[in-house]
Amino acid sequence: MAKKIARNTFIMENPPTIHSFAGIAGKTEGEGPINYCFDEICEDSYFGQETWEKAESELIKRTINKAIEKGGLKADDVDYMFAGDLLNQCIGTTYGIRELNIPVFGIYGACSTMSEGLALGALMTDSGLGGNVIAATSSHYAAAERQFRFPLSYGGIRTPTSQWTATAAGAAVITPKYTAPYIRGVTVGKIVDMGVTDAANMGAAMAPAAAYVIKTFLTDTAMTPADFDSIVTGDLGTIGSSLLIDILKGENIDISMKHKDCGVMLYDPQKQDTHAGGSGCGCSASVLCGYFLNKLKTGELKNILFCATGALMSPTSAQQGESIPGISHAVFISNTDRFSDS
Amino acid sequence: MAKKIARNTFIMENPPTIHSFAGIAGKTEGEGPINYCFDEICEDSYFGQETWEKAESELIKRTINKAIEKGGLKADDVDYMFAGDLLNQCIGTTYGIRELNIPVFGIYGACSTMSEGLALGALMTDSGLGGNVIAATSSHYAAAERQFRFPLSYGGIRTPTSQWTATAAGAAVITPKYTAPYIRGVTVGKIVDMGVTDAANMGAAMAPAAAYVIKTFLTDTAMTPADFDSIVTGDLGTIGSSLLIDILKGENIDISMKHKDCGVMLYDPQKQDTHAGGSGCGCSASVLCGYFLNKLKTGELKNILFCATGALMSPTSAQQGESIPGISHAVFISNTDRFSDS
Repeated sequence: MAKKIARNTFIMENPPTIHSFAGIAGKTEGEGPINYCFDEICEDSYFGQETWEKAESELIKRTINKAIEKGGLKADDVDYMFAGDLLNQCIGTTYGIRELNIPVFGIYGACSTMSEGLALGALMTDSGLGGNVIAATSSHYAAAERQFRFPLSYGGIRTPTSQWTATAAGAAVITPKYTAPYIRGVTVGKIVDMGVTDAANMGAAMAPAAAYVIKTFLTDTAMTPADFDSIVTGDLGTIGSSLLIDILKGENIDISMKHKDCGVMLYDPQKQDTHAGGSGCGCSASVLCGYFLNKLKTGELKNILFCATGALMSPTSAQQGESIPGISHAVFISNTDRFSDS
Repeated sequence: MAKKIARNTFIMENPPTIHSFAGIAGKTEGEGPINYCFDEICEDSYFGQETWEKAESELIKRTINKAIEKGGLKADDVDYMFAGDLLNQCIGTTYGIRELNIPVFGIYGACSTMSEGLALGALMTDSGLGGNVIAATSSHYAAAERQFRFPLSYGGIRTPTSQWTATAAGAAVITPKYTAPYIRGVTVGKIVDMGVTDAANMGAAMAPAAAYVIKTFLTDTAMTPADFDSIVTGDLGTIGSSLLIDILKGENIDISMKHKDCGVMLYDPQKQDTHAGGSGCGCSASVLCGYFLNKLKTGELKNILFCATGALMSPTSAQQGESIPGISHAVFISNTDRFSDS
């Protein structure tokens, strides 16, 4: 049974396993520096569908099915899932999972969704409440552009601080303890709003929320950055990443040698014109399920703190002059299931 | 610790208490037949704010604060919350709870959100993972109209099957066992899509999902409609309610004498021109927290099965010709904490 050690931090007593996982990416992501790590790269941005939104549904469906299949399971073996996405009313997820016949808790955490799903899935599983529980999320560049900014055909100019919504998805199947990688701890995030109003600078808006959750997890567990191979954020990009490191330095926590950002890892900004880096729910989800979990499984990495980061704004809130609140949840994922090994 | 008795049904071992709760409603809801049950009726549709969306944020904030205050608590006493709403990217919730400084799991279940939050809150609490956990949600008529249909100033004609999005919110604080009402069981819902494409007939789209979850809960727990004072759906309205009763009759389950729908209860359609009844996340949340929980607390009601119902569509999915998938989660709430008493 998971143990609550502070207001919002939990340690797993019998750390659940991430039994199987899959990451699928689009064409642009498939041309990036970590393209080797994905289970599939789809050259067709429409994923065989008629619209961008239906493409995203096909993407998340395909990713969930891949994770189930890699685990030697069927959809009926899954007890329930935690899933959501960035499209209005989470329609990417709804229409993607509609035919799977799996009970579902819909979640919304913007680009922090993968952390949120893993956290809830691990807490439920370690408390005996789930056999095979899925956490999944997705994003699609073209669907996000037209919903949040402009339709692609408008040809809008992107500012240097802007980020590139990844066409990508990740899905993980969590089971009671069996084999690495294990989920060993969780800190639930809070909404942190430092007053950033530039919707083309999401990384800066999300960095304080990431700093809060990293600091809280480390403090509550009495761990330090030295205990981790990597402290991974979701999609702060280059600008948000610098800001995160600076904020934590101000708190006497130096993660500069340990920090990795999935948004920075996913593209080569020089060659790919992706400006400050990747974003979108699928960015951190696909990099976790493609890159990090494979390395944790083989033992190449021992311990990571995965903190997907979300910007909880909408075009309506931006138009009404609101600032951009951020949130991030921390998930401690390890190659071993015991704290003494770390 | 909650016990998993089937794929997606759980029974609480030490049923958590709904320690305190609040329901706040708008002017129209305050003129309806159950107006006496709310903690506050706000005559100002703007709730003192400049926009409808900010009004909804103020509404959910005020409702959460009321529930906390009624429980003799402070925001800092709350471990974390499950909350979400219908606005794009759930901005009603985000900006409403921003200043509360409470860790949060964002959830999205359209109008099933209150059931989803109660289910997760109860499962976590009964598993020792939470002290005071909040489930909350909201909706606002004018914000929903302009997002999903037309701005009010357009003066669009409403069809007879259309429903009226409630300006209302509900919030509940869940704690380890102390006093009635108790949450005693949960069935997690599945997406059910019977192909309804009329976005002005949401009740019909959601009825099959409600039927699925009611049937599953009764089957898994070996309970019958006779065990309940009321089997409560969220916002099927008059048309969806008839359909639900018919679907279940086809499965040899007769709930006709026990069924109550919050959308039907909230308004007087003859006097209030609300057509098929109320809808919106806040409809079932406010009726639960205003009407049912008070009667469960006093013992006037012994047992209810609360099944808020959600239509998981968006204007984009409707424009793209998609049908409307529904979802509903079942939550068994009781005046007593033991099955033998029921």
